[in-house]
Amino acid sequence: MLGGSRQGDFLAVVVHRQRSKLAVTTNSTNPDFSKGDGLVPAIAQDAATGEVLMLAYMNQESYDETVATGRAVYFSRSRNKLWRKGEESGNVQEVKGIYLDCDTDTILIKVNQIGGAACHEGYSSCFFRQVTPQGLQVIGSRVFDPKEVYKKK
Amino acid sequence: MLGGSRQGDFLAVVVHRQRSKLAVTTNSTNPDFSKGDGLVPAIAQDAATGEVLMLAYMNQESYDETVATGRAVYFSRSRNKLWRKGEESGNVQEVKGIYLDCDTDTILIKVNQIGGAACHEGYSSCFFRQVTPQGLQVIGSRVFDPKEVYKKK
Repeated sequence: MLGGSRQGDFLAVVVHRQRSKLAVTTNSTNPDFSKGDGLVPAIAQDAATGEVLMLAYMNQESYDETVATGRAVYFSRSRNKLWRKGEESGNVQEVKGIYLDCDTDTILIKVNQIGGAACHEGYSSCFFRQVTPQGLQVIGSRVFDPKEVYKKK
Repeated sequence: MLGGSRQGDFLAVVVHRQRSKLAVTTNSTNPDFSKGDGLVPAIAQDAATGEVLMLAYMNQESYDETVATGRAVYFSRSRNKLWRKGEESGNVQEVKGIYLDCDTDTILIKVNQIGGAACHEGYSSCFFRQVTPQGLQVIGSRVFDPKEVYKKK
């Protein structure tokens, strides 16, 4: 998933790091979590179309799990816990590439969005509304009906 | 820039709002600045290529100026003041569209990046490094030499 022949070694390092429960590591591929109370913004972009799907936040644990599993895991600020994207809807995000910005305090992940919709409101992208002189205009089209996907149990 | 025939009215409303110095407005196209100490993340995406260029932050004032002028204005957390993108390098961002996410707490702007590079390190995108088993690998190519653009005066 991450390319290169040493993926196994890389994942082993990550898993070891998780087990030793180090909050901050010297891994050079590690984002700088020191700003923003240990959270950094993570942008999910469709690897095939380039559409920006959503923005969420990652902490060290969710970043490590994302790298290790190849599925996007965020940290939910409202629920104050790990958010394995798609755990309820099944619409997981398969990670195709991970990128850090120049300040290493923002993550970009390119993903294959299972189910075709990243937004819990049923649109492919959370950015389905455009600012116009007439107000917010819906420019996306619904992929699924949220009432059907998030049924009450 | 924002499309529609009532752009003049819209901009007039924004300008009026700026003059009256209201911190929070009822404008339905307004992001929710109540989280994050009055700042929301803003993603800049190349309107033509779809490349994610950078992530920065906007406060109410920078958002209003972005809408009113059609040029991206951010709020610099490190300098604690408005950051008119390109004010030093000349590489301004012409705004082609503004989008809000489902929670209205993240902004996506599609831009025409003057000069071809959004990153102060001279790359088209700030996300010019990919996480690989061998560490961070530069995957972008430099558009300009930062030493030439940001000359000491």
